[in-house]
Amino acid sequence: MDAAPGLSKTGPQHGPPAASPACIETDALVVGAGPVGLFQVFQLGLQDIRCHVVDTLPQPGGQCIELYPDKPIYDIPAVPLCTGRELVDRLLQQIHPFGVDLHLNQEVTELQRLSDGRYRVQTSAGRDFCCRTVFIAGGTGSFQPRRVKLPGIDRFERSQLFYSDAGPDQVAGRDLVVMGGADAAVATALQHARPGPARARSVTLVHRREQLAASVEQLEELQSLCEQQAMRFLVGQAQGFEEHAATLVALNVADTQGTVHRLPLDLLHVRQGLSPRLGPIAQWGLQLHHTQVVVDTAQFQTSLPGVFAVGDLCSYPGKRALILSGFHEATLAAFGAASLLRGGAEVPLLYTTSSSQLQRLLGVKPAPRV
Amino acid sequence: MDAAPGLSKTGPQHGPPAASPACIETDALVVGAGPVGLFQVFQLGLQDIRCHVVDTLPQPGGQCIELYPDKPIYDIPAVPLCTGRELVDRLLQQIHPFGVDLHLNQEVTELQRLSDGRYRVQTSAGRDFCCRTVFIAGGTGSFQPRRVKLPGIDRFERSQLFYSDAGPDQVAGRDLVVMGGADAAVATALQHARPGPARARSVTLVHRREQLAASVEQLEELQSLCEQQAMRFLVGQAQGFEEHAATLVALNVADTQGTVHRLPLDLLHVRQGLSPRLGPIAQWGLQLHHTQVVVDTAQFQTSLPGVFAVGDLCSYPGKRALILSGFHEATLAAFGAASLLRGGAEVPLLYTTSSSQLQRLLGVKPAPRV
Repeated sequence: MDAAPGLSKTGPQHGPPAASPACIETDALVVGAGPVGLFQVFQLGLQDIRCHVVDTLPQPGGQCIELYPDKPIYDIPAVPLCTGRELVDRLLQQIHPFGVDLHLNQEVTELQRLSDGRYRVQTSAGRDFCCRTVFIAGGTGSFQPRRVKLPGIDRFERSQLFYSDAGPDQVAGRDLVVMGGADAAVATALQHARPGPARARSVTLVHRREQLAASVEQLEELQSLCEQQAMRFLVGQAQGFEEHAATLVALNVADTQGTVHRLPLDLLHVRQGLSPRLGPIAQWGLQLHHTQVVVDTAQFQTSLPGVFAVGDLCSYPGKRALILSGFHEATLAAFGAASLLRGGAEVPLLYTTSSSQLQRLLGVKPAPRV
Repeated sequence: MDAAPGLSKTGPQHGPPAASPACIETDALVVGAGPVGLFQVFQLGLQDIRCHVVDTLPQPGGQCIELYPDKPIYDIPAVPLCTGRELVDRLLQQIHPFGVDLHLNQEVTELQRLSDGRYRVQTSAGRDFCCRTVFIAGGTGSFQPRRVKLPGIDRFERSQLFYSDAGPDQVAGRDLVVMGGADAAVATALQHARPGPARARSVTLVHRREQLAASVEQLEELQSLCEQQAMRFLVGQAQGFEEHAATLVALNVADTQGTVHRLPLDLLHVRQGLSPRLGPIAQWGLQLHHTQVVVDTAQFQTSLPGVFAVGDLCSYPGKRALILSGFHEATLAAFGAASLLRGGAEVPLLYTTSSSQLQRLLGVKPAPRV
């Protein structure tokens, strides 16, 4: 089979590339260590398929840890209530028998089909995998800060416009505008509004709605600082900006009545949360539907044989981006991969309750028998 | 739309039938109170759809309670270990906010499409439902004792051949053969082999394999009684039977070497477990694949509009009879039903973590906001 379009970028000039001698050889590579990626590891383990896992974040858990570690989840089947962190802890405990190899803080970059039918996958940290199957469990992609949508404002990034922490010494005595409505935005505004060395000359928190997703303590402090005129909270949307001598000098914000407020500023801190981005996977030559990867519903295989996609990032008729659907998708993908790795053999359905083979893989004692 | 074939049996002579005045009116009827049926109730609850549930068994939980209440399950996502009973308890806790109406100890019998597009479903206990949607979550059907496969032996049923308890007074002093390899068979053999008023003249336990699925205590007692020659355990398969004057007199059992043993008997107790049977649902006019109900993978709808099938009983390419797949199927079926009940409207995806609407339905306190 020819290499799929878009896969030839880093390949050699003649014919499909061969494996690099330094690569990590594995039957399966899981891209994404969120809840669905972790359950993919579990289901591969039950099929006796060992795997490696790559994730961009510094710890496993994906969105559950990054966006809502302490928020309640009520719809995990048979788990009436857990937090994002508890869900991830439970899944880590469940995959423990299979001893997974995690490669964190790195993004997958290139995917190439090798001459022997395997795939070579490289990461931004220089890891190089040769794998027979790939499971894209990347949530809705890798997370990037949600950007402010004002054409031309990007040129002030890292001088006056910051999406990550700018450090308090740059803020003291200056006019600060913070955009966003959740914990991170409120915390940034409070940090620079309360008395202390990090206090800005002025702080304005801008959010499109009156409701802020912050703790009761944060909201009380915010109200108190607003009453003391140490900061201001403006409900509205950024409409434009003003610059003078290549310097950002003001943000124009329309409030809910349509009145435009001119906010003079030295610094603009945007804390609008993280937005997923498909990233380099978009260039792998997979059939896409908008920004999702098209799969079949029998094996959750993509348009590339041996490359599966599960969880929020996959697309099929009826798809709902729910964790519990990802668990199902990962399971059928593991059956698909097991068949493929065994030359197309029929893969029997075994039950963890009754199968001594599965119980051996799980490292648990089989049920007593004569 | 015309009534589907097979649905007209109990209908009136002219045109589709109208609702019976005594019927229980409901938006949704769930057939089966196993784990998937219970999670169907949860997902319907999140869609604000109230439902009734019918099951043949005397308690909710299906196979999990009937076949393996105390056996471990390792593959429920984010539940590293639970028993069948614990799984059901967790699901009952999860659906608690929605206050389900359970109708137990009865089998669904007839399904008819009414003139207004609803369905009328009747049960063996005389319940009569008029419902807009039906969810078949019947596991692999209703459970019936697994029968002994010897042509002609059925005519001794209830005189010498028993699939359920025959009572000890019929056994005392007679020759008993017990067939089966799990708890129920071993317990029956022990009950009639140990000293006491229920002791048979002879007891032979017959199972096709040497391994018995029984407790350590049962196995120790069995070994002890065999050593005392109070009973016998024969590994083999029934090949035929002998009768004399319309009385069953012996069972012929071939052992693993092929030697046939003639076991004289007065009574044959068959305890080979329960086997699922699709039952009356097979006559509902649904498109079937073998004994499974064919569904699409977007909504898990059957060939009848508004009738969904989820769990072990449904069929689609790639289907694996795993509880976790049933959870996914029930979820997409609930979205399908919600759209149908709202005249085909698009049903938004809400998250229990962030949606105050879902949190209100769940009866939990929304996250603090300003």
